[in-house]
Amino acid sequence: MLARMDNTIELYDLAGRDPALRFSPYCWRTRFALAHKGLKVATLPWRLHEGSRLAFTGQGRVPVLVDGERAVFDSWSIALYLDEHYPDRPGLFGAPAAVPVVRALNAWADLTLNPAIARLIVKRVHDLLDPSDQPYFRESREARFGTTLEALDLRRETQLGVVREALLPIARVLAEQPFLAGDSPAYADHIVAGSLMWPAVTAPWSLVEHDAALTRWFDAMRDAYDHLGRTAVTATSA
Amino acid sequence: MLARMDNTIELYDLAGRDPALRFSPYCWRTRFALAHKGLKVATLPWRLHEGSRLAFTGQGRVPVLVDGERAVFDSWSIALYLDEHYPDRPGLFGAPAAVPVVRALNAWADLTLNPAIARLIVKRVHDLLDPSDQPYFRESREARFGTTLEALDLRRETQLGVVREALLPIARVLAEQPFLAGDSPAYADHIVAGSLMWPAVTAPWSLVEHDAALTRWFDAMRDAYDHLGRTAVTATSA
Repeated sequence: MLARMDNTIELYDLAGRDPALRFSPYCWRTRFALAHKGLKVATLPWRLHEGSRLAFTGQGRVPVLVDGERAVFDSWSIALYLDEHYPDRPGLFGAPAAVPVVRALNAWADLTLNPAIARLIVKRVHDLLDPSDQPYFRESREARFGTTLEALDLRRETQLGVVREALLPIARVLAEQPFLAGDSPAYADHIVAGSLMWPAVTAPWSLVEHDAALTRWFDAMRDAYDHLGRTAVTATSA
Repeated sequence: MLARMDNTIELYDLAGRDPALRFSPYCWRTRFALAHKGLKVATLPWRLHEGSRLAFTGQGRVPVLVDGERAVFDSWSIALYLDEHYPDRPGLFGAPAAVPVVRALNAWADLTLNPAIARLIVKRVHDLLDPSDQPYFRESREARFGTTLEALDLRRETQLGVVREALLPIARVLAEQPFLAGDSPAYADHIVAGSLMWPAVTAPWSLVEHDAALTRWFDAMRDAYDHLGRTAVTATSA
């Protein structure tokens, strides 16, 4: 049996046409979480049409974490896995009693914040995808949103207002405390910062510049963990 | 100095024309929290025009908690006060690390859920207020929402959809765990149950019946604490 230190954790991470462009909000959660725990990771660029590469997990979506013999999918399950299997590393939740409420924040990001951001940036994301991913992406997103990507793009000013309204509670609480998790960042922050990395690397519009507390916090989150979110490849830098 | 057991905690609680009709979502948070801690309370009916009765707090809104020599206002501050001053009673947060994230849920209820519910029921609430409160209430709410109470009431089918969409993350997480706080209810649950008591006692429409997990949870919350939320006076029972 090999010692655990011989393992390199791998993460299947959604990539654009440029394999270095990584924008999935769910993959960003996991990348922040791995950095928080001080775990090294090799990210593997993955495209939407490569479901067969994930067949070993019995499902077809990223993030997928491979840690030696173990494969874990779904960002929430990965977070729980990391705290369970690396208990000596910094915790993602602070205390077991915080887990159920962070799960509610996670559900809010999945069902309220991310759909609002998706409508804002979906045309940009489409244009940055590998051409072999674009037909599927267009068809599935136009079905989901009930309109064309181009029509959504024309409504982006309105949609920016919707996103900012959704972020009001986050802005309020960040005016009262340094991070969502309290005095220092943890998984609650990784969730929302993950959502905001998605437009940050794909679009030129800031979702936080209207609010001092959001700006201060998102700057701090991008600078955290050795500037992980600051050094990310963006559509403009790509 | 009197022993603490001689104190009766008093709570200034927003009331309708019927002084027994109590509907404020912020006061309901505090009532659930007091019951959770097993603290007896005498609720004092208070109307919007009675700001002068709260002058001793330096502000004019309820809930106001009076505990012997101490007066505490603002539902969030009251929750923190109760855990700090009654540490031997059941805790409202489970662990200190949960407090910052519950505060984010609290901000979400204040800035997303409650405004959505307000638009749905504001005309009903107006009609249930003491006549001396109605002119101020109408004027302030029509200014806030930019339209008349009657126009809002005509849009209630649409608004019911908005409220249900806002509740999607809560429904999702309650399909995965018994309560927002985990295996048993705590302040995270008091916050959202407080929001839902507001329509439950003023309006005939259910905000949860479309979803099995929400229904199960809100039933459990109304039955908790010796059926506190179940025995509340409602507009139909009043």
